[in-house]
Amino acid sequence: MTASNKKYTIEESNAFIETFNINPKGSGALNGLRFAVKDIIDIEGYQTSCGNPYWRDSHPVAVANAVCVDQLLYAGGQCIGKTVTDELAFSLDGENFFYGTPLNPKSPERVPGGSSSGSASAVACGLVDFAIGTDTGGSVRVPASNCGIFGMRPSHGFISVAGVNPFAPTFDTVGVFARSSDILAKVASVLLACDVPSTVEVGTVHVVKEAFAIADLEVVGALSAPIEQLRRISGDKVKEMSLLEINSDAQLSDLQTWLNTHSTIQWAEIWSCLGSWVEYVKPEFGPRIKRNFELTKNLDRGKILEAIRRREVYFRSLKSFLRNNDLLCIPTAPSVAPLKGSLGSDRTTCTYYPRALSLTSIAGIGRLPQVTLPLADVNCVPIGLSLLASHGHDAFLLGVVQMIASQVLQHI
Amino acid sequence: MTASNKKYTIEESNAFIETFNINPKGSGALNGLRFAVKDIIDIEGYQTSCGNPYWRDSHPVAVANAVCVDQLLYAGGQCIGKTVTDELAFSLDGENFFYGTPLNPKSPERVPGGSSSGSASAVACGLVDFAIGTDTGGSVRVPASNCGIFGMRPSHGFISVAGVNPFAPTFDTVGVFARSSDILAKVASVLLACDVPSTVEVGTVHVVKEAFAIADLEVVGALSAPIEQLRRISGDKVKEMSLLEINSDAQLSDLQTWLNTHSTIQWAEIWSCLGSWVEYVKPEFGPRIKRNFELTKNLDRGKILEAIRRREVYFRSLKSFLRNNDLLCIPTAPSVAPLKGSLGSDRTTCTYYPRALSLTSIAGIGRLPQVTLPLADVNCVPIGLSLLASHGHDAFLLGVVQMIASQVLQHI
Repeated sequence: MTASNKKYTIEESNAFIETFNINPKGSGALNGLRFAVKDIIDIEGYQTSCGNPYWRDSHPVAVANAVCVDQLLYAGGQCIGKTVTDELAFSLDGENFFYGTPLNPKSPERVPGGSSSGSASAVACGLVDFAIGTDTGGSVRVPASNCGIFGMRPSHGFISVAGVNPFAPTFDTVGVFARSSDILAKVASVLLACDVPSTVEVGTVHVVKEAFAIADLEVVGALSAPIEQLRRISGDKVKEMSLLEINSDAQLSDLQTWLNTHSTIQWAEIWSCLGSWVEYVKPEFGPRIKRNFELTKNLDRGKILEAIRRREVYFRSLKSFLRNNDLLCIPTAPSVAPLKGSLGSDRTTCTYYPRALSLTSIAGIGRLPQVTLPLADVNCVPIGLSLLASHGHDAFLLGVVQMIASQVLQHI
Repeated sequence: MTASNKKYTIEESNAFIETFNINPKGSGALNGLRFAVKDIIDIEGYQTSCGNPYWRDSHPVAVANAVCVDQLLYAGGQCIGKTVTDELAFSLDGENFFYGTPLNPKSPERVPGGSSSGSASAVACGLVDFAIGTDTGGSVRVPASNCGIFGMRPSHGFISVAGVNPFAPTFDTVGVFARSSDILAKVASVLLACDVPSTVEVGTVHVVKEAFAIADLEVVGALSAPIEQLRRISGDKVKEMSLLEINSDAQLSDLQTWLNTHSTIQWAEIWSCLGSWVEYVKPEFGPRIKRNFELTKNLDRGKILEAIRRREVYFRSLKSFLRNNDLLCIPTAPSVAPLKGSLGSDRTTCTYYPRALSLTSIAGIGRLPQVTLPLADVNCVPIGLSLLASHGHDAFLLGVVQMIASQVLQHI
């Protein structure tokens, strides 16, 4: 794929809400690395906007860093700014009604993806070495895929979310964007407090049939080459599998059921977390976010019990199926980044959202860590290949990603 | 132990902030059961106070139930009120400066324990069948022990915290109080969306030496009878163990290190979550809570990295050590409930807090589920015996508790 080395200015990127310089508070693995922070994560002395000026104006200045920001600063990182986010993190678009659209430098006519749009853009534009965002339903993984960089969603509950605005806590995570697998491993190992193994023994790499079936044909084609490389370097351990092998429940092989399960829980939680603020402040939203909040407000909450029951069944099925050194392999997104302005205002009537969220729901429901690798493109527009490991095996997954990056990236 | 059947009125209990009647929204496992909700968990149409009138007055009426409250209502439960909590959940006392001290009916001159004081009191006074609370550092387990009822802290991340005020998200959980193991199992199985097994095969019950070493001698004495019963019904699978068996790091056998690890992360997170509100609103606090917030504000945040690193080492050590059907056994608290007014205003200078939090830190650091069982008393004042299972094995633990309750409770 074309790795443009063009340099962008902060202004050209439109990735930042504001820039500043917060020096490292300590010395460690992140010495010499500059990073940016999604503006839904508190930074001491600044107001957090969550991508909406009404949120900013109805909340005080943060008096403390989010714990994850302090981890990075004490490990030697230097923070240079707060990045644009979709409003309240409620989108995969990356087109903010108030703050504009951060640049996708790999394909400027396309969206960067959201909701951690500015963090992805800042890394892809070469303005920082890494950035942090949040990922509830794909908000790190999708923009990383769109912008052709590494992106990680960790196992749920393993990186502190204190000082991060709650959205749907059952799925909320702090994730990482990086321009190289080395930097990704360094940053994630600080946040997760783990050691990334220098050598790993991979079990089976399960290529999930149903996930590839809902992707664009050109995406399936583009990802076939890196999958072949994976087959070669893993010693033929790549194997196609169906979700039916995880659990014989026929519904389980339909990713639409995973999507519905995830969305029901997520929407119920969003309204429980943010509904009171929405109704009390009556903020202005962009049209897409307005519609999204209407969906959460009007959700039939009688569906919560069944959704949580199904989620736990699927979680346990995945846990039984995946051995500690197995991986799942899926396309990160069903297509390359959509063209700007193409997504419409109603996520329920487009074909992109249901497919994208079906793919991202697997890690959410399984509490699994997922890394998207920038291994392919469709006519020079990036598309990520994702690997998922079993719950809690983030260090193993990072070790696998390091190995692949050293062996595959040099061949493409 | 003396199981008083005296009935108390709502007024006598002082357990409630307000009472009302919210009828079930569905029919299921909780049909016919009445419950109460700690006033840190949102109920639609009511203001959540978090035990402090300044919090209540600076936040709008909740427009949605917390997800866990909806789960209970749709499963057939009837909600009758909001219960007193220690301010912002930041205490194990149960003596609220603004709303008073809920009655500990088993020992009226002693505190009920906190922070879920009213929920424990409401169950112990027989006013509800069960109640929900939150447990970050012991706020369900300790009051359940003090009041002589069942209390459960689930595996972290397995019961939704959406609509529950964040305190220290790395450790925050929604927990359950119940007057019987049957009701506990019913409620927990709804919230966790799991099936409690009717028969269980217990592996080894590890009685943690260091945990008993910091308890009062009279507590150790009182708990010896139920442990002997446990040995009998488990087929001699009860075994004394040292924390050194989990990991050869000598520090690990000192529960003070567990306490320091837990407190550093918890205090950092509390200030990240609540510091901005504290500094902006400048609320009045009771003297103990005021002092607690000063501790979090003045924490040396340079200690965060090492605390999180140690936490993950201990978590992984526990995970390797505990098999799926093993249990840890510890005293829930180091002593029976302290006398009212005896705890002073500085938690760092008393002997109760460090010992209590050392015991509760094991589940927090291990992400483990824990149930305290009302199996013993010291001169008619209750003390709980706690069992902890491996991470994610909540259903197994509930099955064990059911078995013990049916076999042990009838003998004492």
